[in-house]
Amino acid sequence: MKSPIYSVIMAGGKGTRFWPLSRSQRPKQLLKLLSRTSLIGETANRAVPISGRRRTLVVTVAEQLNAMREELPTIARENFLAEPEGKNTAPCIGLAAIEVAARDTDAVMVILPADHWVADVPMFQRTLYAAVELALRHNDLVTIGIKPDYPETGYGYIVKDKFVETYRGIQAYQVRNFTEKPKLAQAQKLIRKGSLWNSGIFVWKASTLLELLRRYQPEISRGLEAIRKAANGKPLAAPHRRLRATIAREYEKMPNISIDYAVLENAGSEGRVQTLQADFGWNDVGSWAAVHRMSRRDANGNAGNGKWISLSAKNCLIHAPERLVVLLGVENAVVVDTPDALLVGDLSRSQEVKELVEELKRKGYGSYTIK
Amino acid sequence: MKSPIYSVIMAGGKGTRFWPLSRSQRPKQLLKLLSRTSLIGETANRAVPISGRRRTLVVTVAEQLNAMREELPTIARENFLAEPEGKNTAPCIGLAAIEVAARDTDAVMVILPADHWVADVPMFQRTLYAAVELALRHNDLVTIGIKPDYPETGYGYIVKDKFVETYRGIQAYQVRNFTEKPKLAQAQKLIRKGSLWNSGIFVWKASTLLELLRRYQPEISRGLEAIRKAANGKPLAAPHRRLRATIAREYEKMPNISIDYAVLENAGSEGRVQTLQADFGWNDVGSWAAVHRMSRRDANGNAGNGKWISLSAKNCLIHAPERLVVLLGVENAVVVDTPDALLVGDLSRSQEVKELVEELKRKGYGSYTIK
Repeated sequence: MKSPIYSVIMAGGKGTRFWPLSRSQRPKQLLKLLSRTSLIGETANRAVPISGRRRTLVVTVAEQLNAMREELPTIARENFLAEPEGKNTAPCIGLAAIEVAARDTDAVMVILPADHWVADVPMFQRTLYAAVELALRHNDLVTIGIKPDYPETGYGYIVKDKFVETYRGIQAYQVRNFTEKPKLAQAQKLIRKGSLWNSGIFVWKASTLLELLRRYQPEISRGLEAIRKAANGKPLAAPHRRLRATIAREYEKMPNISIDYAVLENAGSEGRVQTLQADFGWNDVGSWAAVHRMSRRDANGNAGNGKWISLSAKNCLIHAPERLVVLLGVENAVVVDTPDALLVGDLSRSQEVKELVEELKRKGYGSYTIK
Repeated sequence: MKSPIYSVIMAGGKGTRFWPLSRSQRPKQLLKLLSRTSLIGETANRAVPISGRRRTLVVTVAEQLNAMREELPTIARENFLAEPEGKNTAPCIGLAAIEVAARDTDAVMVILPADHWVADVPMFQRTLYAAVELALRHNDLVTIGIKPDYPETGYGYIVKDKFVETYRGIQAYQVRNFTEKPKLAQAQKLIRKGSLWNSGIFVWKASTLLELLRRYQPEISRGLEAIRKAANGKPLAAPHRRLRATIAREYEKMPNISIDYAVLENAGSEGRVQTLQADFGWNDVGSWAAVHRMSRRDANGNAGNGKWISLSAKNCLIHAPERLVVLLGVENAVVVDTPDALLVGDLSRSQEVKELVEELKRKGYGSYTIK
């Protein structure tokens, strides 16, 4: 029997790293950073061919629900789940799992962060089909690992154990353990021993995940079970009032924890996590520097959109949708122009934009972080 | 008999070096770069105590006449002369000289560029009184030389000859010759031998200047003479129609030439030019870098006006009258925000803003150079 495939797009992020373009009402996944389509739009375009439109779910937070539905008009309203508050990825994936399991007890979930970039879409899809096969073969958890291009310190890494098998030309390994954002020297060492970037893309049966949550995270599991009972077979999207109250109450009690810490590390030590060594051109678009790296650049390394001209500027990223932006002799700069705020930054320090937003709040400019 | 003193403020510049703040209808002399008063306002405030309000003239070009009158409401309308077109300083000063001579045959002119910065105003005024005495003593041409702070390559230099006398504590020298914008090594050499910056401030009797124009620049002199006859004793400000036509016709024929080339170099070689070695804190505010140098800076060397904040930015100049400008880690940058255009430049290359404006015109953005 063939298990139905569900895509679960996780779209709860705030994206302060793209201030002043991103605000709390305009998070990263809605930004058109790399094309005329938003990041979540691109993600949905990649997911729908795998799972079909009907089996593509989006999990977001209540305050972003309307914006997400507007952005993805071809996804049915009952396929959007709203968390009452963000509690990292474990509760989010758990919530999606009870919805998926209620629809198809035997279903496989493909979990996709909404705001990533993928270069080679056919290879991406081939990798996910391979992951589905692998997840069904052993009833285990499958992570998508990415062959690193360079020792990025902003990513988590997957340390491989023994080779398992090749699926559709892609090698699968047991996972030894996970390493969170390493220092540069450690990242270099990880790459030397063949470790992979942790893409945050996961594939497993909903029932397997729920079983492992019961074992490793009884608190989350109890909350999800209470929600499942209150739903009583009704869809979690557009919940009735009592169900909404139950979800809110149970969420409040749940720990704020990532699926990596909550389940993958434990399951990995029992040999129940595999990784596919993927190579489809992936990036989590984590900063203006990443956007610059992935954009089409001119001969001087400048990239941008809108109305801008440069006199001997080099390696700059410009966002100029309305006003004319003129660069003179600057290098490695990011210039982001919005109607009420303007960022001029050193591209190599664009990881600090997040701190900058905190600084703005402290200095009484908090209104510029909301739109 | 005491000669009356006239101030002549030369205000015909376009100031493309301050784009995007300066446009052809908003030239440098109208900008409030260093205080809440425009540069020409500051210049008039320094001049009026010397010459009195009635004897303070402003020479500008026709298209800026209304803006100048608005900016200096306490100067009488008949004290504004409009050139039909800019022809560098020689015709401008010649035109002022025939007006001054018509009012007082014996008058001394103090010629002041409209757009300079002066730190020590009492010392500035004492220097000009000394210059008036010196000019009257020998009926010669007096230039104000400035003790250089550093080997600026954007200025002209005055090479001193023998010491003449001390006036009001300020040393006067014969002038050997003038050197236009030198290369750095030459500027350093000029400073070592005691040469002075040429401030462009001049003092002489109107009649002396007209006599020397007759000798060295017969073309200009003939034009001025035709204008003088057409005026027939009437003020050149608000000229009647026939007079305006005469001025336009004569201006068209005049060469485009600076007073330095037209008169000072020739007169200097005949020993008729002196310089006062002044030290009142002077700068011609020639670029954004000069504005930065003269502004009050914070501990990180940042200066600006409006709404801006910085996270580890250094040595930047920010003009942010309306929107919030946020700097992250950039150094030596100038950021100038206007409603329709934005400049982000390397401060040390701000001399190139002029070329940038030409580039804008070439690339079809000419409308951004006018307001």
